[in-house]
Amino acid sequence: MQTVAIVGVGLIGGSFALALRKAGWTGRILGVSSESTLRSALERGVIDEGCALDTATAQADFIYLAQPIGRILDTLHHIDAFTGPGTLITDAGSTKQAIVAAARRYVHRSQFLGGHPLAGKEKRGVASADPDLFVGRPYVVTPGDAPELNTPAASEFLDWLRRIGAMPVSLSPAEHDRAISFTSHLPQMASTALACTILEHGSNFEVAGPGLADMTRLAQSPYELWRDILATNAPLIEEALTAYIAKLEYLRENLRTRQMQTQFETAARLKK
Amino acid sequence: MQTVAIVGVGLIGGSFALALRKAGWTGRILGVSSESTLRSALERGVIDEGCALDTATAQADFIYLAQPIGRILDTLHHIDAFTGPGTLITDAGSTKQAIVAAARRYVHRSQFLGGHPLAGKEKRGVASADPDLFVGRPYVVTPGDAPELNTPAASEFLDWLRRIGAMPVSLSPAEHDRAISFTSHLPQMASTALACTILEHGSNFEVAGPGLADMTRLAQSPYELWRDILATNAPLIEEALTAYIAKLEYLRENLRTRQMQTQFETAARLKK
Repeated sequence: MQTVAIVGVGLIGGSFALALRKAGWTGRILGVSSESTLRSALERGVIDEGCALDTATAQADFIYLAQPIGRILDTLHHIDAFTGPGTLITDAGSTKQAIVAAARRYVHRSQFLGGHPLAGKEKRGVASADPDLFVGRPYVVTPGDAPELNTPAASEFLDWLRRIGAMPVSLSPAEHDRAISFTSHLPQMASTALACTILEHGSNFEVAGPGLADMTRLAQSPYELWRDILATNAPLIEEALTAYIAKLEYLRENLRTRQMQTQFETAARLKK
Repeated sequence: MQTVAIVGVGLIGGSFALALRKAGWTGRILGVSSESTLRSALERGVIDEGCALDTATAQADFIYLAQPIGRILDTLHHIDAFTGPGTLITDAGSTKQAIVAAARRYVHRSQFLGGHPLAGKEKRGVASADPDLFVGRPYVVTPGDAPELNTPAASEFLDWLRRIGAMPVSLSPAEHDRAISFTSHLPQMASTALACTILEHGSNFEVAGPGLADMTRLAQSPYELWRDILATNAPLIEEALTAYIAKLEYLRENLRTRQMQTQFETAARLKK
C-alpha cells in the first residue's frame, strides 16, 4: 500500500484514514468527496490531497469506498477503467450481496474485496472522524471465495485492519447479509416501529422508565442512511421481521403463562 | 409525618428512606423486610429499626409499600386493622388498577394513595439504594378521585416528593396503566422478543452494530420482576402488542416504498 484513495470522506472514510496514520502507515492519502468536505478533511489533516475520482483511483493502489450503498454501486460501475492489477478496492457498505455482485460484474482489472466495519457514532461527517472508531469492533470482509483473502493486497489490508485495532471476520456476502438482517436491520425496524406505535397510540410519554430511551435511540437514525440498506436487503429483513412478529404474537398469547418465564430466561442469554 | 414504615426495604424502599433523610426529614424510619435485608439496611443507616409488619404499621403515620406487586396486594389485605385515621398508605408498585382496587376493598381506617416512581437501576436491593434515585424522574400518584390529593397527609407526601427531587404527576389508575403499557411494558416485550428472535434465528451475534446492545438491555430484566406486572396489566399490554405488531407488519410491507420515510420521520419525533 503506497497510495490510498478514500472515496467518500465522512465518518467512516475519515476515521479509516486517521486510523491508518495512527497505526504508523506513512503513504499518501487522497480524498474524493464534495469540495466542502475535502476542505474540512484537509484542515483536520485527514487526507493529504483532494482529487476527482478518476485522478485519485488512477494513482492509488488501495481504494476505500466509504459512500452510501447506492453511490458505491454507482462508483463500481465506473471505476474499472482507472485501476490496474495489484490494486485492491474495498468498501464499507452495510449490505454486501448487491455490492459484491456489482463488483463481480464491473471490476475486472483490479481486485475487489467487500467489507463492513461494525462501528459507528451518533454524529456523522468528517468532523466526527476518530482514529479509534474501529478499535475492538468486528470488521467483516466478504470474499466471493476464500482464496481472495490470500492475495498480497488482501493480506496487507487485513494486516492493517488488525493494526488499527479492528477484529476482522470473514463471511460470505449472503452470510453477512443474513446475520446483519437480525443483528442490525431488525433492531432498527423494532426501534422505529416502537417509537411510531408509542407516538400514535400512547399518551403521557413523560411517564416512562429509563428503558424507553434505550429502545428508541436507534429510531433517531436518518432515513437517508437506511433507504439503500432496505432496498438492498429487503427479502432478508422481511424474513427477520416475520420471525420477530411471530415471537411477539407468542408473547401476547402467553403473558400470563409459565411460557413467559422461559422466554425471559432465553432472552437473558443474549449478553452483548 | 412523624414515623415512616418502609415495607420492603429494597432498591426503591431503601432509596426513598435515604432520599427523605437527605431532604431533611428527621422522623423515625421503621423497616419491614427479611432479617438479612433489615441487618444490611441498619448497617447502611437506611432505617432506624427493623420491625414486624403489625408493629411497624401500628406505630407509623406514613406507610410506604415497596414490595413486588403480588406482595403489595397481600399486605393491603391484612394491613387495615393496624392503622388508624390520619395515616397515609402509599405504594410503589408498577401497575396501579389492581392495587387501587384492592386498597378500596380492604383499607378503610386510613387513607390509601397509589404511587409509581419511574426510577430504577440495573442493580437491585438495599445495597444499591441511592438518595438521588428519584431526582428529575416522574413520580405518578393515582388518586381514585382528585380530592384525595388534598388531604393533609397526601399534601405532605406530595411536598416530600418534590423535596426529594421527584416530579409528581397525577393520573387515574386506568390512565397510568394504559400509558405505562406503551412506555414501559411494550418496550420490555419488544426487547425480550428481539433477544429471543436473534438467539433462535440469527447467527454471528458478534457481527452487530452498537445499537443491538441498547435494544437488548431490557431483555436482561428478571422474570420475577415482570410476572406480577404482566398478570395485573395483561389486557392493556395485549392491546399495545397488537398495535406494535400492526406497525411492524406495515413496515414489512413498505421496506422499499416512500411510506418508510414517513415512518422514520415520525419515529424521530419521539425524543427521550
